[in-house]
Amino acid sequence: MTFDKTELKVNPENEELYKTFLPKVEKYRQALKDGILEEYKLPDELLPKSVGVDVTKIPEQVLSKKEVYITELKAVDLAAQIAKGELSSVEVFRAYAKRATMAHQLTNCAMELFMDEGLKRAGELDDYLATNGKTVGALHGVPVSLKEHYDYKGKVTHAGYVGLIDNVSESTNQCVQILYDAGAVFYIRTTEPQLLMHLCSNNNITGIARNPNNTALTTGGSSSGEGAIAAMKGSALGVGSDIGGSIRAPASFCGVWGLRPTQKRVPMLPITPAGSGVQELIVPVLGPLARSAEDLELFMKVELGSKPWETDATLIPVPWRDVAVPEPKQLKVAVCYDDGVVKPTPPILRGLEAAAKKLKEAGVKVVEWKAFNVQECVTAAYDGYNADANKKQLSLLKLSGEPVLPLSKHILNSGCGFEGLSVYDYQNDAGIRDGTRTAYLEQMNELDVDFILSPVYSSVAPLPETCHYWGYTNLWNLLDFPNVIFPTGLKCDPAIDKPDSSYVPRNDTEKYEHELYDDAAKFAGAPISLQLTGKRWFDEELVKASQVVAHIIAK
Amino acid sequence: MTFDKTELKVNPENEELYKTFLPKVEKYRQALKDGILEEYKLPDELLPKSVGVDVTKIPEQVLSKKEVYITELKAVDLAAQIAKGELSSVEVFRAYAKRATMAHQLTNCAMELFMDEGLKRAGELDDYLATNGKTVGALHGVPVSLKEHYDYKGKVTHAGYVGLIDNVSESTNQCVQILYDAGAVFYIRTTEPQLLMHLCSNNNITGIARNPNNTALTTGGSSSGEGAIAAMKGSALGVGSDIGGSIRAPASFCGVWGLRPTQKRVPMLPITPAGSGVQELIVPVLGPLARSAEDLELFMKVELGSKPWETDATLIPVPWRDVAVPEPKQLKVAVCYDDGVVKPTPPILRGLEAAAKKLKEAGVKVVEWKAFNVQECVTAAYDGYNADANKKQLSLLKLSGEPVLPLSKHILNSGCGFEGLSVYDYQNDAGIRDGTRTAYLEQMNELDVDFILSPVYSSVAPLPETCHYWGYTNLWNLLDFPNVIFPTGLKCDPAIDKPDSSYVPRNDTEKYEHELYDDAAKFAGAPISLQLTGKRWFDEELVKASQVVAHIIAK
Repeated sequence: MTFDKTELKVNPENEELYKTFLPKVEKYRQALKDGILEEYKLPDELLPKSVGVDVTKIPEQVLSKKEVYITELKAVDLAAQIAKGELSSVEVFRAYAKRATMAHQLTNCAMELFMDEGLKRAGELDDYLATNGKTVGALHGVPVSLKEHYDYKGKVTHAGYVGLIDNVSESTNQCVQILYDAGAVFYIRTTEPQLLMHLCSNNNITGIARNPNNTALTTGGSSSGEGAIAAMKGSALGVGSDIGGSIRAPASFCGVWGLRPTQKRVPMLPITPAGSGVQELIVPVLGPLARSAEDLELFMKVELGSKPWETDATLIPVPWRDVAVPEPKQLKVAVCYDDGVVKPTPPILRGLEAAAKKLKEAGVKVVEWKAFNVQECVTAAYDGYNADANKKQLSLLKLSGEPVLPLSKHILNSGCGFEGLSVYDYQNDAGIRDGTRTAYLEQMNELDVDFILSPVYSSVAPLPETCHYWGYTNLWNLLDFPNVIFPTGLKCDPAIDKPDSSYVPRNDTEKYEHELYDDAAKFAGAPISLQLTGKRWFDEELVKASQVVAHIIAK
Repeated sequence: MTFDKTELKVNPENEELYKTFLPKVEKYRQALKDGILEEYKLPDELLPKSVGVDVTKIPEQVLSKKEVYITELKAVDLAAQIAKGELSSVEVFRAYAKRATMAHQLTNCAMELFMDEGLKRAGELDDYLATNGKTVGALHGVPVSLKEHYDYKGKVTHAGYVGLIDNVSESTNQCVQILYDAGAVFYIRTTEPQLLMHLCSNNNITGIARNPNNTALTTGGSSSGEGAIAAMKGSALGVGSDIGGSIRAPASFCGVWGLRPTQKRVPMLPITPAGSGVQELIVPVLGPLARSAEDLELFMKVELGSKPWETDATLIPVPWRDVAVPEPKQLKVAVCYDDGVVKPTPPILRGLEAAAKKLKEAGVKVVEWKAFNVQECVTAAYDGYNADANKKQLSLLKLSGEPVLPLSKHILNSGCGFEGLSVYDYQNDAGIRDGTRTAYLEQMNELDVDFILSPVYSSVAPLPETCHYWGYTNLWNLLDFPNVIFPTGLKCDPAIDKPDSSYVPRNDTEKYEHELYDDAAKFAGAPISLQLTGKRWFDEELVKASQVVAHIIAK
């Protein structure tokens, strides 16, 4: 059983094996369809007949006012109202069950729907509150969506690999368990791309997910479904993961909030695919997608409040600190307009410029960030993904012989690709990483800023299967400076954001990415989101600053 | 210019190159001799004529009572008395200058002596205190010794490599600078072995250092000189570093205190040899050698109190926490009598058993630790050292063509040796590490203990050039659980600690190590020290517990 490394095409022997998996895939898809319950679903006549549509407002056409009210609440407020008895967990659940089911019908964001379990859990939580006069925890009755990636005891966890479609988790991921113990209600697991390594959504099990703001566009990835469901308000809070942009691209492309925390704070295990190795040149993290800074903080408080380091020795015991919401004049921000590798497209530049102007007007210190070492760091990041010569990824693909999708081919050939690295070069990349970590901190100190405002990607949400450049996000994975993604309130406007045809690309990557943005009309309605980056380990200050920054920018 | 990998012998081409370095080595040795100033030195007639002698009490024969008083004080008390004006920095310095100079004469512990600079600095500190009525910091006037390994602006830093004997540091190591800024007085840089990778002391520049308790024995290494000078009371506090036992072996063999903190707390850069790569399978740390738990804490408080993470983004901002000294009955300790690879020799077993008995009598909870995964972890640790196929070490040896010493050959051929690792296997080792980290924490939780008491090495200080097995120390480097070394007050006693000739070794390593302990008389007077290990990141609780544990055991 081999893959042709340069072509990564399905060889005849793969085809034979893959045939044995197709009935399983069919069965899985049927189960997903069966998960769309009559009581929650959107009537067929409200489903758009074509793509290129903003579907975010469609559920409101059939939801009651109360249901809209419930699903518009921030998670912190929702939890507070449930705790006070103003809302029941069951009525909250039913509202979210509808909106999540519709979200899936409209964007294909779900891998698994288990609404009955959610309803049962919500009922039990109501009983608990009635009997005990107190909640089980800070998330009592809050509907939370989960990327399918995390082990969930008793459920299949395949992580987008066809070869793992029979893999039933033996235990539940610690991060997920902590949310559950705090009262979260689970009912949907969301979609991710093949290899978990596209800033896009395609896999051979459930196909692509669509961007709620414009269904011709991608949700981003790899927490693809989490981006879509957050934008559709199908969950109050969601869990994604990020090793190159996988929380931030979907949050940005779909127009919601996302936090990539500093590594080793939020627990991560067990996860599928498990594997025995640990790649630590560039470290994955779990984190929240949500609809506000307050909800990002709620997630972190619940996770760290459980002291997960008492059982997981790979974590660092840094409790979440309560810090004050800063005054605008206390904020000091450097703005990165261009990373020197791929210049942002017109809508992103417009977003950055508008943001800088408003921040200055509000009294925020704003200076320009001079990007440096970006290409070296981004190359090191890609090297990290493929350092084992793709041995682990290929072994997972080979389990089923499934076809290798275009963006999988792209990422497998990025960085060191199939050559892999020697340990000597791997360690050199770690040296580049550590040196740049400190050099970036030094530049922040020299500029006297605490935050960096930058693009999330060189453009707004692209078409499916096209996004190649991860540098605006995976730079920060490598350096491990935490990031918050937030919407600016602006959207791509074809009348304003015309492509700059006079611009001469500085390299092939930039040429490729700029050519994707050949016609602004394709991207109409795509959210313009930005990324705020803080100092490593200072997630608390970052989240609070993002709340103020986003408020000023969206005003 | 090549080395024969299997022999690592000096080839003819090496010999030619090496000859060009010999005059430089000679000059360096002469400078070291010249650093022995008349006013501080031990009269020649008091120098022992042979090895195998306890030299720890010799300096007292020529020191004044006041000088003995000063050099017997803990660093915390010394600093307090200077701050109060009860002692001047200059008189303190002179006492230590004498004792350090004599320590070097008796054990060959110094790489560089710069007493004039120390005296000048002490004078300036006295002036400062007189003028300002306050100290410059918590270490005002405290004489501190430094392993030569750390960059020191304007001074040669060769780290034991002949090829770096002309390498003048451009800046000062941050850890060292923090001590300086807190008022430390520097005057001696101490010796380390070739490659910095022997638990012993030999190098081609200054040769071996001798154990003050029995000069036939090794000081341990690689912070070889730090072990000797601490035992000789030639400094109030010293700085070592540890990637496999390099703080702990010298502390143990010489009978003093040492702390290997959890990684990424104490700053470490810049360091020689610099290199561009970062090996992070098993991470080196800097830490203190001292004569009490209180002084270990003093070091950590000074380092972390300076907030080093504000300029070094590789550090984790976990400030030092003040924790109370526990009552014996609050302590819960598991004792490891055997790691399953190399059973400790009779003196170490005697020390462990005596310790367990006394702890129980004092009301401490004592259970037995069941060692597991030790061989896997120790192999992974050795793999870490050599993962780059020794590429970096060989390039440093080749700079001068210097002869490769026996224990260098040993370590270069340990683990994966000259084969190196693939990144895939490197990542697998990281998986073994992370899995065992959590498994050890789980076993601590199951046993309901907070600390593990174990040997530091399978025996007491061995003869020079013999120590092979690092498992009792490098297990903890890999797992990154912090450790304190402390003396039990017991010493190897040939009348009691007879070799156990009936014991059948379980493997070749054990056979080798047990054969070293063939005659207890060789090891007469060698300190019996133990290692207390705490939970990862809980250095504070560990240091405070070690204070109580050591006090009970030494009673």
